[in-house]
Amino acid sequence: MTRIAPPHLRPKIMTADEAAALIHSGDTVGMSGFTGSGYPKAVPVALAARIEAEHGAGRPFRVRVWTGASTGPELDGALAKANGIEFRLPYNSDPIARDKINRGEMDYFDMHLSQVAPMAWQGFLGPLDVAVIEVTGIRPDGTLIPSSSVGNNKTWLDRARKVILEVNRWQNPALEGMHDIYYGTRLPPDRVPIPLTRPDNRIGEPWLRCDPARIVGIVETDTPDRNLPFTPPDRTARAIAGHLLEFLRHEVARGRLPASLLPIQSGVGNIANAVLTGLVDSPFEDMTAFTEVIQDGMLDLLDAGKLRMASATAFSLSPEAAGRVNADMDRYRNRMILRPQEISNHPELIRRLGCLAMNGLIEADIYGNVNSTHIMGSRIQNGIGGSGDFARNAYVSIFMTPSTAKGGRISAIVPQASHVDHITQDVQVIVTEQGLADLRGLSPKQRAAVIIENCAHPDYRPHLADYFRRACAGSYGMQSPSLLTEALSWHQRFIETGSMLP
Amino acid sequence: MTRIAPPHLRPKIMTADEAAALIHSGDTVGMSGFTGSGYPKAVPVALAARIEAEHGAGRPFRVRVWTGASTGPELDGALAKANGIEFRLPYNSDPIARDKINRGEMDYFDMHLSQVAPMAWQGFLGPLDVAVIEVTGIRPDGTLIPSSSVGNNKTWLDRARKVILEVNRWQNPALEGMHDIYYGTRLPPDRVPIPLTRPDNRIGEPWLRCDPARIVGIVETDTPDRNLPFTPPDRTARAIAGHLLEFLRHEVARGRLPASLLPIQSGVGNIANAVLTGLVDSPFEDMTAFTEVIQDGMLDLLDAGKLRMASATAFSLSPEAAGRVNADMDRYRNRMILRPQEISNHPELIRRLGCLAMNGLIEADIYGNVNSTHIMGSRIQNGIGGSGDFARNAYVSIFMTPSTAKGGRISAIVPQASHVDHITQDVQVIVTEQGLADLRGLSPKQRAAVIIENCAHPDYRPHLADYFRRACAGSYGMQSPSLLTEALSWHQRFIETGSMLP
Repeated sequence: MTRIAPPHLRPKIMTADEAAALIHSGDTVGMSGFTGSGYPKAVPVALAARIEAEHGAGRPFRVRVWTGASTGPELDGALAKANGIEFRLPYNSDPIARDKINRGEMDYFDMHLSQVAPMAWQGFLGPLDVAVIEVTGIRPDGTLIPSSSVGNNKTWLDRARKVILEVNRWQNPALEGMHDIYYGTRLPPDRVPIPLTRPDNRIGEPWLRCDPARIVGIVETDTPDRNLPFTPPDRTARAIAGHLLEFLRHEVARGRLPASLLPIQSGVGNIANAVLTGLVDSPFEDMTAFTEVIQDGMLDLLDAGKLRMASATAFSLSPEAAGRVNADMDRYRNRMILRPQEISNHPELIRRLGCLAMNGLIEADIYGNVNSTHIMGSRIQNGIGGSGDFARNAYVSIFMTPSTAKGGRISAIVPQASHVDHITQDVQVIVTEQGLADLRGLSPKQRAAVIIENCAHPDYRPHLADYFRRACAGSYGMQSPSLLTEALSWHQRFIETGSMLP
Repeated sequence: MTRIAPPHLRPKIMTADEAAALIHSGDTVGMSGFTGSGYPKAVPVALAARIEAEHGAGRPFRVRVWTGASTGPELDGALAKANGIEFRLPYNSDPIARDKINRGEMDYFDMHLSQVAPMAWQGFLGPLDVAVIEVTGIRPDGTLIPSSSVGNNKTWLDRARKVILEVNRWQNPALEGMHDIYYGTRLPPDRVPIPLTRPDNRIGEPWLRCDPARIVGIVETDTPDRNLPFTPPDRTARAIAGHLLEFLRHEVARGRLPASLLPIQSGVGNIANAVLTGLVDSPFEDMTAFTEVIQDGMLDLLDAGKLRMASATAFSLSPEAAGRVNADMDRYRNRMILRPQEISNHPELIRRLGCLAMNGLIEADIYGNVNSTHIMGSRIQNGIGGSGDFARNAYVSIFMTPSTAKGGRISAIVPQASHVDHITQDVQVIVTEQGLADLRGLSPKQRAAVIIENCAHPDYRPHLADYFRRACAGSYGMQSPSLLTEALSWHQRFIETGSMLP
């Protein structure tokens, strides 16, 4: 059965090469995709081949690429390898693209994910030439059944001069009805309250609208999403999860959190999965999630009956978990909602719902400033993503990390963060496998004492304590004592010697 | 005529010394006050005298002080001078208290102003023992007529075990009706949308509620607010205002801002006043303000008929301007609204209204990270205040500063910020008297080029350009190139030599 219901659209079906030929050098292209889900899988590869051919013929060809967040190797990897990306926003985790950025060969604008759609509407990011959007199908009335991520698709479809659709037969048709696309956003002065008061509220419609006159091509695909395989939590991750769960139990016991907690936001990866797995055996019932992605651990929580429902903008499932969801979509569909990322990450909603934000970090300094993007202050890892949206507006903002990296040669706790993404005010709890620092209500010096004692690795703890003691004796001011000639010396030592250890 | 209408409350009238005796060492005291407006003027002075007497007798006596924001010398100044403040939140601009903090003798928790009331309700800041609140009068039904600031008064009155009121006869009784106290805030999961869609919406009631059973003392005063005298804008401030007004005209011409602009948020001081004065002669009509404070320049805009109305949480008027307002309160009352600071600074509302945020800074680095609190990275100036609430959620987030300080010995543009309060993502425009950098949509290296060229002082520009060039050649990564051994060297040079110049 065809996934493209309207007969008048069928003449627009074409090959990926034909569709890629509709994209020109210098174009700004808005693509679907959020983590390894729902990104276009054929047109970017064809575009990369075209770019390589053009380069081979001595002709320049580069595009500006906007997405939801990260994508798969067929998009960022292929286009970056072809030297085809001039400018990229708002998030990247592809290793080839990362390498181009860190060699200075690709401009990267690392944005708060909640702000991408509004800023595109504000107009100063420039016009959007083409949208390339993966969908599950096209309905008889021309509306689109979204696929495994929503991201900025609504905005790209509304704003682009030309639209190319990839209809991916691999996506489960039973996804229809899971999405909630809110069409009530406006530019000021016409903005109104977003009428969502619970993570399970539906405030929009299940389909994406699309002006058929702007559809210039439709490409049929049958290609799986490419998310990473699941890695079972290691001992460090389980220790971090243990400290965090103890904290949550303590907060509930003190009456500072309801027994069903508050809506959970959780990043991806090993530690996030360990925390979610830990929640399976926790006393908390009837939990909800208001978050960016639904990952394997979230699915386990749903299956265990502990999580009532999850709201997100994308799946970020291992191939195994994606198989589980696809095999039982009718059951999962009523317990999951995928929304545009301007809604999943909206400060208004995060603050109202009172999310428990749990994010990773690269390093934190002794005052609790968090660097989650730049290794040694200059080399981008992925990007800030939605962590700023959640951390500043959360009920409790929690950051989690192993206390060391690179086999102990990097300390996650440093005298001064080499780059700051989350200021001290937005960091209330830091957890490592060593312990948990509850920083709420503490002044900077009080924070330093707790972070060094509870979170730092024993190999680095005396060095941090020594730095802090000397800073308290010799600093210019005593609100946040520092020794400027030493503050970044641990990073410099790592660059020079391969280790932060003296 | 009495300002204390309920006869049953009159027996609670007492002297400031008697009221101060109701406060104990170790108490947490929530005081009114936001800038130099509406703070209690008698009890803190009496408390300071009591503390000095106790210290003289060899007995320890210190309290924890919470307020709206900064206050006057009779509060922070007197208590700090008496070594009476153990812990202070959320903002301070008093020079004596600042000095204590920077000598490490007073703990200071520098908070986002929007988060003070919610975090007090969350309970982890500890209990509130006493509220000391200035009001204009007590109505027959026991409700309170607020004075010249609202700040956190609603929350302190709701949360404190004991309440001391200062009824200040100096405050104009015609203030009654200007305030809008919203009683719809809740803790999650019971939060609902805040029903405000225009700066002039009234969503609450004009009076503060107060449980009479908790009133332990009422002190009558007749003392003026103590705001700073007005300083006319100097040439630098006028140049900054000129660049900014040109930018706003340009944005309106490009259709990116309405002709009446969007609600203005403006800090205090010389430059803010210059911008507001510049708006008097601008083509923009029917403007509104959604901001923290109403300062002299805002009053001029209202008088000129350019500003339709202003919403804030406090007056921050020179004595002369306060006189103007008091002489004509019936007219001004309908064009101004004073709200609790959890509403004036609420991220939900700032994002919805699309404020044009205009804040000052201490330094910005070449990538546009802004330090607005810590001189040389360690010495607190005032605090972050509401700048984070506004900058992250604004339609356009603008930071303004002279390009140098201390007669040219400090550059406001540095290789790396010595402390970060506003990350690059939250800083869209930087203005100095040298020019304006429009950073929207730019990658870090693109931002550096524009900031150095447009904003840096000519004495520092070649040094910044040289640093950036060498960083691009020798950095560990090229997303935000840096040289770690030099990044903070300008600050260290200032500490050692008194100048950042080589």
